[in-house]
Amino acid sequence: MAWTSSRGLAIAAATCVTVALMPPMAGGADDDASAVFGVTLPAGYRSWHLISVAHEAGGLDDLRAILGNDIAARAFREGTKPFPDGAIIARLAWRHVPSAENNAAFGQAQSFVAGPATNVQFSVKDSTKYAGTGGWGFGQFEGGRPNRDEALLNTCFPCHSRAPAQADFVFTRYAP
Amino acid sequence: MAWTSSRGLAIAAATCVTVALMPPMAGGADDDASAVFGVTLPAGYRSWHLISVAHEAGGLDDLRAILGNDIAARAFREGTKPFPDGAIIARLAWRHVPSAENNAAFGQAQSFVAGPATNVQFSVKDSTKYAGTGGWGFGQFEGGRPNRDEALLNTCFPCHSRAPAQADFVFTRYAP
Repeated sequence: MAWTSSRGLAIAAATCVTVALMPPMAGGADDDASAVFGVTLPAGYRSWHLISVAHEAGGLDDLRAILGNDIAARAFREGTKPFPDGAIIARLAWRHVPSAENNAAFGQAQSFVAGPATNVQFSVKDSTKYAGTGGWGFGQFEGGRPNRDEALLNTCFPCHSRAPAQADFVFTRYAP
Repeated sequence: MAWTSSRGLAIAAATCVTVALMPPMAGGADDDASAVFGVTLPAGYRSWHLISVAHEAGGLDDLRAILGNDIAARAFREGTKPFPDGAIIARLAWRHVPSAENNAAFGQAQSFVAGPATNVQFSVKDSTKYAGTGGWGFGQFEGGRPNRDEALLNTCFPCHSRAPAQADFVFTRYAP
């Protein structure tokens, strides 16, 4: 969807939530798209730039890598906020599992590595299409397949809206 | 150093340890090179392909990302062993620090992120130049500066030699 006039932009702003909720999921018209935002799996994301890593303990108990496409990585490195349209951030996660092999080599139990993948989440910046959710559309995939659970995808923005305002709804900082 | 004859290769194999120990460090001739193996900081490594992530608890207490250049990443993905000459693996590490900001958003203490960088290590495959150490040369850098501690760099291969033989002295597996 391309808006070519300021009137169009005003309409987009006024109807963004409806637009975001409406087209991709209706009748399963796009089987490759995750729920609510219509985000599809970006080609080549597994080779994007590393932004940072993280470890979620507790119930999640995972290790994470946050990658960015060229536009997102440049914005992270240069501190550009808000992120420009076209920026996509990928969050990969794997089970946080001990490595018996590494521990044997190190002589002590200290090493945790990436186990089975859990899911991959994307944040896609399109300030027009996703104006109602801070300019971000969200997607989740398991084993390369889109998650179609609308209730799940509707939790993305309420959580991201808790990130500091100056971070443009993004939790991750660029790792030095 | 380029070897252009089979006799040259034989000499390289016979003298590899001397070759590796000798030239870059003598008299500080190459200030950009890390000790023992003469490894310099590879251009653009921060944008290399993500191979995996890890968490070392205990005294190290860090989060890690393992990146590979094009040759290394292809070998990881295709399971090619030994790694071909030209493969370079980068291990970045940062302090494993709690994120008060993330914990506040999640409503519980569970989130650890990349804190200050500790060091970056490289494994460089050159089966001729580094024949005496499994075909691998090793380098370490702090803040972009090469570590010149010979005793430290001489610990690299003895540790990597504990990785399974079929892994070509590499601990990391490609994260799915």
